[in-house]
Amino acid sequence: MSLLVVGSVAYDGIETPFGKIDRILGGSATYLSLSASYFSRDINLVGVVGRDFADEDINLLKNHDIDLQGLQVDESGDTFFWKGKYHFDLNNRDTLDTQLNVFERFDPVIPAGYRDARYVALGNIEPSLQEKVLDQVQKPDLVVMDTMNFWIEGTPDALKQTLTRVDLLVINDSEARELSGEPNLFKAADKVRAMGPSSLIIKKGEHGALLFTGDEIFSAPAFPVIDIFDPTGAGDTFMGGFLGWVAYTNDTSPTNLRKAVIFGSVMASFCVEKFGPERLKNLTEKEIYDRYREFRRLSQIPEVD
Amino acid sequence: MSLLVVGSVAYDGIETPFGKIDRILGGSATYLSLSASYFSRDINLVGVVGRDFADEDINLLKNHDIDLQGLQVDESGDTFFWKGKYHFDLNNRDTLDTQLNVFERFDPVIPAGYRDARYVALGNIEPSLQEKVLDQVQKPDLVVMDTMNFWIEGTPDALKQTLTRVDLLVINDSEARELSGEPNLFKAADKVRAMGPSSLIIKKGEHGALLFTGDEIFSAPAFPVIDIFDPTGAGDTFMGGFLGWVAYTNDTSPTNLRKAVIFGSVMASFCVEKFGPERLKNLTEKEIYDRYREFRRLSQIPEVD
Repeated sequence: MSLLVVGSVAYDGIETPFGKIDRILGGSATYLSLSASYFSRDINLVGVVGRDFADEDINLLKNHDIDLQGLQVDESGDTFFWKGKYHFDLNNRDTLDTQLNVFERFDPVIPAGYRDARYVALGNIEPSLQEKVLDQVQKPDLVVMDTMNFWIEGTPDALKQTLTRVDLLVINDSEARELSGEPNLFKAADKVRAMGPSSLIIKKGEHGALLFTGDEIFSAPAFPVIDIFDPTGAGDTFMGGFLGWVAYTNDTSPTNLRKAVIFGSVMASFCVEKFGPERLKNLTEKEIYDRYREFRRLSQIPEVD
Repeated sequence: MSLLVVGSVAYDGIETPFGKIDRILGGSATYLSLSASYFSRDINLVGVVGRDFADEDINLLKNHDIDLQGLQVDESGDTFFWKGKYHFDLNNRDTLDTQLNVFERFDPVIPAGYRDARYVALGNIEPSLQEKVLDQVQKPDLVVMDTMNFWIEGTPDALKQTLTRVDLLVINDSEARELSGEPNLFKAADKVRAMGPSSLIIKKGEHGALLFTGDEIFSAPAFPVIDIFDPTGAGDTFMGGFLGWVAYTNDTSPTNLRKAVIFGSVMASFCVEKFGPERLKNLTEKEIYDRYREFRRLSQIPEVD
């Protein structure tokens, strides 16, 4: 089933304790769609790039069967550029440079052929733009949205308005606490779900993720990645794997959403192994399914009589 | 099989955002043995109390079939007293008062009848005292030890010496990072295990626990406790449930250690529901096994083809 992905397409400059790269493909829509492409073959990307966007990057997305009819090329400027440096523990980073460029005028126009999308991924962009996307689509089965502290603090009203129209919110633990004003994550989840999204995923980085859907809570482990090389894009990659699996199976049951959380975690665990989206270029089905099984072994609780 | 528990027996004054109690039974050996008593019927406690130690607290321990031959009563002073106040988020606490009293002169003497213990729980006391216990016991199957930042910083050499004689160390995530100097928990685990303990449990509070044993890593979820009333003793209660199960089953296989981690987590999740050890007084087998099954549901990853 078709998956509509809306978000940023960017170039990133990244410095980690293990290396440095001046310019590499990035952006939430990029990671989302590359990750989802390992499951779903019907991915429609909406975003904007500038005159400097490289053919090889267009080709990378095309080679992953990602439809680019919705990718606007704005010749009046350059592609969104972000530069950041990660601290020693990789949990924190400093933004060194942000050039919004053509992204500043991004107006998500959903092509007619995308409007019947069954699944919608709203990457981390301004909440009012996320809502504009929802104004243009028909009745999707599942709308999944990401956001961040910047919008929780900067545009709380627009964010809360958009949340009322979303089925599943994906945020990290500090964002869940900030959005709800609750230190206890399980209480925070109740409060966030009362704002609109019937389901919620809280990403906890090295501690895994929590899925709240219906009456169920699912606690997913984190993969024991010894050498995290670059965490850039891991959250978007998680959401891409999650939604790619859901779109592929066309199943939003709690049991299938558990599988989707693990496939999202699998993809994120690969993503951090190399710079930017490098590791997402040439994964094999076997690598993905093997790691899924490793996740199962990792958290298997034996039965007792 | 017999379980030897060595640690503090104390009175605590506790203030949480939800209430305040001036004086309640506490101490690592208390929580450890009460928790273990739900599994094992052969628990031998070694500790010291003062002239103020109440008959009702003696009776509580006795009623849980805990052998008190090793509990010294030092009439020259009062029982160890600790008073603390938890912050709003319950993750941090301030110590308001510490009166070591008779605990200052604690010299763990292991009664002859305890020396063939198959399982040994070294509660969080000075590393040199923990080693003194090991000097007195014969060849136990499993020695499990707790420690804390205070000893990591204050007596690093004694701690490292004791670690060489321990089979399994139980510490929390910040302690693992501090002891190893590694921010990545999986790398930290490798370094800590290289110091002596072949197995390691890292407790992560609201994020569950990690068990490292042999080539296996097991990631255990945390129970979604909405109302954590008082976290005092949760770590000791975890270790007590863990070792109680191991002593009861007399099985240190990786699969059984996974079960033990979950039983430890089950007991800790009960412990935090009320003040001090209150909730550990009257649990039923059904409550314990039901919660074990809830842990299984919580982290069950479905198979994929």
